[in-house]
Amino acid sequence: MAKVDLNCDMGESFGVYTLGLDAQVARYISSANVACGFHASDPVTMAKTVKILKENGVAAGAHPGFPDLLGFGRRNMNVSPADAKAYVQYQIGALQAFCMASGLTLQHVKPHGALYNMAGKDYALSRAICEGIAEVDDSLILLGLSGSEMLKAAKDVGLRAAKEVFADRAYEEDGSLVARTKPGAMITDEDEAIERVIGMVKYGKVKALTGKEIEIEANSVCVHGDGEKALAFVEKIRAALERENITIAPLHEIV
Amino acid sequence: MAKVDLNCDMGESFGVYTLGLDAQVARYISSANVACGFHASDPVTMAKTVKILKENGVAAGAHPGFPDLLGFGRRNMNVSPADAKAYVQYQIGALQAFCMASGLTLQHVKPHGALYNMAGKDYALSRAICEGIAEVDDSLILLGLSGSEMLKAAKDVGLRAAKEVFADRAYEEDGSLVARTKPGAMITDEDEAIERVIGMVKYGKVKALTGKEIEIEANSVCVHGDGEKALAFVEKIRAALERENITIAPLHEIV
Amino acid sequence: MAKVDLNCDMGESFGVYTLGLDAQVARYISSANVACGFHASDPVTMAKTVKILKENGVAAGAHPGFPDLLGFGRRNMNVSPADAKAYVQYQIGALQAFCMASGLTLQHVKPHGALYNMAGKDYALSRAICEGIAEVDDSLILLGLSGSEMLKAAKDVGLRAAKEVFADRAYEEDGSLVARTKPGAMITDEDEAIERVIGMVKYGKVKALTGKEIEIEANSVCVHGDGEKALAFVEKIRAALERENITIAPLHEIV
Amino acid sequence: MAKVDLNCDMGESFGVYTLGLDAQVARYISSANVACGFHASDPVTMAKTVKILKENGVAAGAHPGFPDLLGFGRRNMNVSPADAKAYVQYQIGALQAFCMASGLTLQHVKPHGALYNMAGKDYALSRAICEGIAEVDDSLILLGLSGSEMLKAAKDVGLRAAKEVFADRAYEEDGSLVARTKPGAMITDEDEAIERVIGMVKYGKVKALTGKEIEIEANSVCVHGDGEKALAFVEKIRAALERENITIAPLHEIV
Repeated sequence: MAKVDLNCDMGESFGVYTLGLDAQVARYISSANVACGFHASDPVTMAKTVKILKENGVAAGAHPGFPDLLGFGRRNMNVSPADAKAYVQYQIGALQAFCMASGLTLQHVKPHGALYNMAGKDYALSRAICEGIAEVDDSLILLGLSGSEMLKAAKDVGLRAAKEVFADRAYEEDGSLVARTKPGAMITDEDEAIERVIGMVKYGKVKALTGKEIEIEANSVCVHGDGEKALAFVEKIRAALERENITIAPLHEIV
Repeated sequence: MAKVDLNCDMGESFGVYTLGLDAQVARYISSANVACGFHASDPVTMAKTVKILKENGVAAGAHPGFPDLLGFGRRNMNVSPADAKAYVQYQIGALQAFCMASGLTLQHVKPHGALYNMAGKDYALSRAICEGIAEVDDSLILLGLSGSEMLKAAKDVGLRAAKEVFADRAYEEDGSLVARTKPGAMITDEDEAIERVIGMVKYGKVKALTGKEIEIEANSVCVHGDGEKALAFVEKIRAALERENITIAPLHEIV
Repeated sequence: MAKVDLNCDMGESFGVYTLGLDAQVARYISSANVACGFHASDPVTMAKTVKILKENGVAAGAHPGFPDLLGFGRRNMNVSPADAKAYVQYQIGALQAFCMASGLTLQHVKPHGALYNMAGKDYALSRAICEGIAEVDDSLILLGLSGSEMLKAAKDVGLRAAKEVFADRAYEEDGSLVARTKPGAMITDEDEAIERVIGMVKYGKVKALTGKEIEIEANSVCVHGDGEKALAFVEKIRAALERENITIAPLHEIV
Repeated sequence: MAKVDLNCDMGESFGVYTLGLDAQVARYISSANVACGFHASDPVTMAKTVKILKENGVAAGAHPGFPDLLGFGRRNMNVSPADAKAYVQYQIGALQAFCMASGLTLQHVKPHGALYNMAGKDYALSRAICEGIAEVDDSLILLGLSGSEMLKAAKDVGLRAAKEVFADRAYEEDGSLVARTKPGAMITDEDEAIERVIGMVKYGKVKALTGKEIEIEANSVCVHGDGEKALAFVEKIRAALERENITIAPLHEIV
């Protein structure tokens, strides 16, 4: 029977600033990527977030980002692979403390924002990140873009890896995401988005922007909890997947 | 045979800014308090510092401080016990990641600067810190001022605790440190300082500022590595302790 | 004819995090206290905020706070008067740049949060702040709690000062604010709050918590724009003041 | 008679961390680029730095950088031109406050590190920076790499600009700096470096890496004060320029 993970970024508040409908989206997802204090979050927010995960039976993942709170980790930064490795290790450890305090086991690591995008195209950066993860805890799963350098590096380092797909993004024929600046990059029709996800999960296929059907592996679908509309979509896609007899399960039950 | 630990703050550099003669002082001490990125340090510095500890067989401790890099964690901040607990957990976890990556076991936690001073006099704050430590890893040792609220809280929480004394500070009759603003607060004569430490370690006694001899327990002596003079003193005090047949050993062999 | 200023904190967003209904509250107030990047805000937010002030004819004030973004500047910090002076000068200058870029003249300075509370009771801190302001631009007005040490220091330094009152806070007989932890500290009835403000502005009197009528000077009333309810109250208090023939005017037309 | 400015980065300390021999190098230079709290420095350091400039009759310039204290502003960051403009305005204003408090007039703006390098090759970024400077104070001088996009943008915006050359760097035939990764990029012989500077200042010519003599304009020479060796070189180059009857003068006397 087909299985897939639904992952969502969580714990992106900071101090008095709140962001995201964490407690609500936690009811529908199987894995959460928890911000670790670099691009967002702080220790108090992390403690709260881990509690929400525990209450909802959601698997915890670290979501390490660049040290750029002002830019929410979304701006490329020319950080050396060695420095990026240390940044990732630091953030994993910080989150592990809250997991240990709550009796949860950290499941995975998914780089955030610009770090995710840069690493996806840069083997040296991905390799440093994967080595960093493995040094801290080699049972952690790397969650990265299906077909990216991150997955190659994880394989080379001997780290378990999970392949992520996006419901709302179009793909090029080589399996990479269509750049957001290109027409057709975003899948705006919800039903089409859901249909595409079902195709990826059940049959390992999706239609590229060119119209050609390509092969793609989908262990996890990225969803969002940053607004009412996003939340409604998560509920909808979960229901649709279940109707197709696709089991929603956390990464560690899949890879 | 008498045993005592020599502890020193380490890893206080930040980015391009360097502080402390870490590689040199590591040759003389048994335990190090490693800054964790709040009052000082950064992930790259932490990775380097843990490597120095490993090479020198020095036991690693977390040195969590207030989120005040600009003030080096030396300024009192009105942080709630609940928030302080989360700050401490975050910093412990961050350091644990580098210890795990280097095959070291984190040994202890010593709050830094203003957090150390405030907690020493505030049971609620100390209690929150100790509960935070125990939740993350109940095998960790709290290193706190001999006779302070921190040690009471550690006992109440069931955390192993080590009693710290200062070579260069005078004591009041109740065992508290003489405020730095008071005349006679600092022991400036090195031989006198060493003699006092030997008395504390071997006989559990020290002469208070008033001249009265008081009882004091000493599991660990705080030394400094922030300059050539401090470094020379560490070498000197270590030699003097060894001449008195006092074994220098890390905290986990003492408490 | 009676005149009073309505002041409100503005520009408290940071990066992707938004806070406050700035564009809406700007329609009802005469002076704004603009966060300057220490306890909240960032350069992009400051540029936007100054534009909103210009469009609405609201006078601009700097709202310097402690360097504590995580605590929103609400936590007491043991910062020396000399350091606080430099922090205030830095923040004033930063905001002045955006005022110059928009053709606005900076009108006033109101310390934020814990800095406001600490300075209100600490003459040395207030003195350092006022000297700092005067050194940068001696035409700036200090906006401080009516009856506080800040106003004494401003007078001693030769700085124009404006006396601030709170609609939603009870007063002790000596004119100080009732501590928030004391019963009766908050005036929760809106009509009572408005009536009290009218009394303070027109007659210079208010009933203390004890029931005794005390004298109080009110150049400016602090209002809030951090939610729909707060916004509705600002509209209501403005209308009530105008019905009483009290002119709403910026500080520089009052002191 | 030939004139040239000697400029040096200053005020790069942060909190307890000290960097640079500011008080000593200030005796030999005519203009200083003062860090403004983003890539280095803090309000207290800025106040001290401006005092040193005043005592030594050195002209003050703002040295705005990326918000990357951890990377000392040396890492490229994908900041939008609009955001960079606001960052520069904020930092200029912050420094102006300390200049006003000390009775100094801010003379110039020189972007720091990665911002300098990126803007030098990116007209849109340079344009935003120059517009930002002009909006705040159109009497400020932009100090930028001779031949770079920054100087073109300054001209287009109507900002006075000064052309900077480097004593220790080789040039390509098109007047750009040889990348540091290329052999021959650094001029390591001090006498050769001085001779090259004299040639640039007196005759507007320098030998490119290829051996071909190219034209170059030099209003200001960048020197360093970050160590004893750098300091000795500043003294030496100043003496050599004076022997050649070249007057050392601040930028505002040159452009």
